[in-house]
Amino acid sequence: MTERAEGARAGRARGGRRAGDSGTREAILDAARRQFADRGYDGATIRGIAADAAVDPALVHHFYGTKERLFAAAMRLPVVPSEVLTAAFAEAADGPGSGPGGLGEHLVRVALTVWERSEVLGIFLGLLRSALTSDQAADMFRGFITDAILGPVAAVARARAGDDGDGDGADSEDEAAYRAGAVATQMLGLALSRYVIKLEPVASASADDLAAIIGPTLDRYLTGPIGRTGPVGRTGPVGRP
Amino acid sequence: MTERAEGARAGRARGGRRAGDSGTREAILDAARRQFADRGYDGATIRGIAADAAVDPALVHHFYGTKERLFAAAMRLPVVPSEVLTAAFAEAADGPGSGPGGLGEHLVRVALTVWERSEVLGIFLGLLRSALTSDQAADMFRGFITDAILGPVAAVARARAGDDGDGDGADSEDEAAYRAGAVATQMLGLALSRYVIKLEPVASASADDLAAIIGPTLDRYLTGPIGRTGPVGRTGPVGRP
Repeated sequence: MTERAEGARAGRARGGRRAGDSGTREAILDAARRQFADRGYDGATIRGIAADAAVDPALVHHFYGTKERLFAAAMRLPVVPSEVLTAAFAEAADGPGSGPGGLGEHLVRVALTVWERSEVLGIFLGLLRSALTSDQAADMFRGFITDAILGPVAAVARARAGDDGDGDGADSEDEAAYRAGAVATQMLGLALSRYVIKLEPVASASADDLAAIIGPTLDRYLTGPIGRTGPVGRTGPVGRP
Repeated sequence: MTERAEGARAGRARGGRRAGDSGTREAILDAARRQFADRGYDGATIRGIAADAAVDPALVHHFYGTKERLFAAAMRLPVVPSEVLTAAFAEAADGPGSGPGGLGEHLVRVALTVWERSEVLGIFLGLLRSALTSDQAADMFRGFITDAILGPVAAVARARAGDDGDGDGADSEDEAAYRAGAVATQMLGLALSRYVIKLEPVASASADDLAAIIGPTLDRYLTGPIGRTGPVGRTGPVGRP
């Protein structure tokens, strides 16, 4: 509901139409919801959304900056996921101030804190419900998670795990994406189990307990041994049926 | 669709009504679907389902044996999850025949094989969709997973991890349930990411790659260090907000 990022940007607006600003922003957000739903996260463009809202693309950039910020505002997310993640990585890298656990534990704590803001949880459940009933919505959800969450996580995996020694940059990038995907499986499953299915004792476990058990998993997925022998999903004697 | 367990049992039926058998079984399954939906998995009873179907409870026991088998038949699941798990644990314990990885890798492979039978996937997605839209359905899904999946997994965690050394049997049981819950978060998240959201590269990764990266996580959740310092969810300076 609060759309803070948008508010902050609107406050900096220079020379925009005064009374019309909020109406223009609503028209942009309505167009964004339509375009994201129709074209998916990847297919929607700032240019297309501007055309749908009958405004100049520069105005959309001016109000929202990036496609992810526009998506977050359109979905009424009170946070911008990639920014939360970037801040969490920076905190964990800062040593003393980062708490007793490693990066993995810190990520679990940050995720629990964000998810347990009720407006985030409601939106997550809404996106998930749509993804289960519509391929288009699943496309949109997947595109958003890939861009806003897997992207930053893969960047950290790449920076921390480094190249795998064969000097093959492309392979290393592929590996970083796979590591980020593994992190996503664990964290999406934690959210599903704790908030949707409400499986006990996971649903009522403390953040400390969950960080202690799941944190080391994320650390291994990000930087530890993961047993890969070649490009993901393209080799190996046992393929997908 | 196939309802194999039911078919096998029906084949062994002694002296039942010939032409009426399939009608009776349909009446029992209809009653089971109503009772599971209305009362949840935990609340539904063989006795109550028999009363709803206007048959003797002994007949329901005769056809289906256990509540889990009845649930599996009512939901048209072609497998009985606890039996698949028990078989997987036995295979992994049999040493040479268990393949190169540990128990965790074996569990990932078994889960992928079962899930990728299209009828299982459709039912899983249906249950999940219902759980997201109705608290009653979430109750039913939770009760079923707790009984049919977490129960057997916790039993293995208890047997393999053993007591935690403080001689407190109750705490050990509590810990086993928590370990099983952690396994569930990872495996539900894998299913959600691969089949619902279709996140790449997880969605198209080979069973070998997924077993190699996720198997060790399950092994640690089942028997490794998990950093618990007391009863789950009841102590610790940082509770759930």
